[in-house]
Amino acid sequence: MKVAGIIVEYNPLHNGHIHHIEETRRLSKCDILIAVMSGNFMQRGEPALIDKFTRTKMALENNIDLVIELPFVFSVQNADTFALTSVSILDKMGVDEIYFGSESENIEPLIKIADILESEEYSVLVKKYINDGNSYPTSYDLAIKDLSDTNEHSKPNNILGVQYIKAIRKLESKIEIKAIKRINKDYYSEFDAKGEIQSASALRKALFNKEDISKFVPKSVSVLLKNRRLISLDDFSNQFKYILSSTPSTELEQLFGVKEGIENRIIKVKSISSSSDFISQLLTRRYTNSRIRRMLIHILCNTRKDVLTSFEVPYIRLLGMNDKGKDYLNVIKKNDSINIISKVKEGIHPYLDMELRASKVYSLVSDKDIFKEEFKPLIYKRFNWLKSKKEYNIFGW
Amino acid sequence: MKVAGIIVEYNPLHNGHIHHIEETRRLSKCDILIAVMSGNFMQRGEPALIDKFTRTKMALENNIDLVIELPFVFSVQNADTFALTSVSILDKMGVDEIYFGSESENIEPLIKIADILESEEYSVLVKKYINDGNSYPTSYDLAIKDLSDTNEHSKPNNILGVQYIKAIRKLESKIEIKAIKRINKDYYSEFDAKGEIQSASALRKALFNKEDISKFVPKSVSVLLKNRRLISLDDFSNQFKYILSSTPSTELEQLFGVKEGIENRIIKVKSISSSSDFISQLLTRRYTNSRIRRMLIHILCNTRKDVLTSFEVPYIRLLGMNDKGKDYLNVIKKNDSINIISKVKEGIHPYLDMELRASKVYSLVSDKDIFKEEFKPLIYKRFNWLKSKKEYNIFGW
Repeated sequence: MKVAGIIVEYNPLHNGHIHHIEETRRLSKCDILIAVMSGNFMQRGEPALIDKFTRTKMALENNIDLVIELPFVFSVQNADTFALTSVSILDKMGVDEIYFGSESENIEPLIKIADILESEEYSVLVKKYINDGNSYPTSYDLAIKDLSDTNEHSKPNNILGVQYIKAIRKLESKIEIKAIKRINKDYYSEFDAKGEIQSASALRKALFNKEDISKFVPKSVSVLLKNRRLISLDDFSNQFKYILSSTPSTELEQLFGVKEGIENRIIKVKSISSSSDFISQLLTRRYTNSRIRRMLIHILCNTRKDVLTSFEVPYIRLLGMNDKGKDYLNVIKKNDSINIISKVKEGIHPYLDMELRASKVYSLVSDKDIFKEEFKPLIYKRFNWLKSKKEYNIFGW
Repeated sequence: MKVAGIIVEYNPLHNGHIHHIEETRRLSKCDILIAVMSGNFMQRGEPALIDKFTRTKMALENNIDLVIELPFVFSVQNADTFALTSVSILDKMGVDEIYFGSESENIEPLIKIADILESEEYSVLVKKYINDGNSYPTSYDLAIKDLSDTNEHSKPNNILGVQYIKAIRKLESKIEIKAIKRINKDYYSEFDAKGEIQSASALRKALFNKEDISKFVPKSVSVLLKNRRLISLDDFSNQFKYILSSTPSTELEQLFGVKEGIENRIIKVKSISSSSDFISQLLTRRYTNSRIRRMLIHILCNTRKDVLTSFEVPYIRLLGMNDKGKDYLNVIKKNDSINIISKVKEGIHPYLDMELRASKVYSLVSDKDIFKEEFKPLIYKRFNWLKSKKEYNIFGW
């Protein structure tokens, strides 16, 4: 049996992702396709546009067999940790190959970059650039440019691709990694001219502007988004105002991501009109927008440093599956080394408690009680399923 | 020079308070009348209807010479601590006599109750009743009834009066304490028939119902309340929703007033529609409404147990004065043992930092930035003052 894995956020799932899924299935000839997906908060430090249960349905509707949650404490992290923990989950799930969307068609240039990143020269150079007051991404860029003539390293999907390669090496995993060339103007210009592909961030922007995005997403996604309240970081503006009013710096510095004196910068912020305003008041050359956003998400969800002590994946939490996924699960469940959580409750693991807290916070601004949904049986997609809302018959397994 | 002191909340100042001020001046023949006043949060665990700076103006407009702040950490406390710290401030300020509104005309019955409260028999009895599952007030009531034939002990103002007597004893202060009979139906029936006296709680209720209260308060108070946003605990409903979503019980139990397992009750609250709903979900026979409310205020303002370590008054913070008050202040300022804060800033004392935090939180729902006002010069009322809004010329001293 061949098992392929992909690492996704689906915020929201769009035609580019369909291409990724189809190409993964075509190239791998896999029997099972597993997706590791971020929950309610994204790697770049944003709340998901729409909750994770709805996004799980999007995935199951579009040919994913098993959807596994990347725990909150791993999803709102830098690319290193995000990649390491996602790959670790796919490794535990017995995945043979990981396919990732890339600006390159093959992974050789990315392997070279991974080699550079693991060299002594690189770590000396990157420290120098950081000490000069540059942000981490700028230092990364400058150091690699000093050591090679590649341009591949700074492309956003390749940054993650390189991290996947590093993760596989670190985990000593046998997983093979493959690049799928993303569809973009340079490559599929005709396809793009028809305008069927847009980036997730362009689609979010369009959605908040109440524009029609139906030609850029599968029909199932349009249906699932219809009449739903869409969430952005600015929906948490009042929560950030309260946090700013009530939290002394000694307590802020106990939260994950608050380091290098940024707690003192936060305390100096006199007042904010919104979350975005808060971010813009915190931005400096040293801290990237994503890093500030991730820190704010951890402040919002009260992620304590003393809770997030390890980047080892402690459990596998399934979000949804179809019949094929269920069959595969029954096979690998026999493997005792995998701790699969079949029934969510409080007190199982501090990271799962943190997940539940993040869902409580997300529910404050969502149109659904996402926290309550955490305890419902898994989302299950029957093989012969009806094209109605009732198709999501949620039941235990 | 004769100095009289009173302990007030002025939430809002009304005709009953005018009676209290006039009787204090008439009976004491004082040269200076000092009021210790709660800040933005009240002894019974509520936000002040209107901020402390506005209430200071009400006091100065109505014949108080000096207004001193009862720090937040002492004001949102049980009657014991509220009374002890208020009396301590008046003692430091050189007050000769304290006059308090009472259901009794003289303090002899209250002295007898204070004697009972300090007896061994009482402490045994009250523990027994608490262990039987009664609230503290019920246990207090039952124990005193067992030991005496008085009915005075359970009247709300007398409860405070007894605490003032205990406080003077504990502080070994030379202050004399005097009762002023409150105006009520039984006593001044004719006055009451004209309907000029209403309790502060009745007035708050009327104000929230947009009723005209002008005949129950001095004109100056009507003017100061006009067009202002009035605050109640339900204005903080969203903050409590966020706290419930983001705070684990291990963190709640670090907050003042969270004890005896009530943090577990809080965690079990699934969702709340408002602050009032939160209170009603927490109420039991054991915890009084006021105790629950005080705890919620400390949760809201993030008052940590490890910050509130002592009930010793560490500083005197003036809120306002008139010319006479200023002259008196210049005399007592020469006394080195009084630490008078003349310029508010962060980092002077943890209790003052806590005061500032409470003002930040209050400002979240107020129509004025009360936190900003903390740093402005003292409110000063000139002797010859104009009957316009400009009369509050705020300047340094």
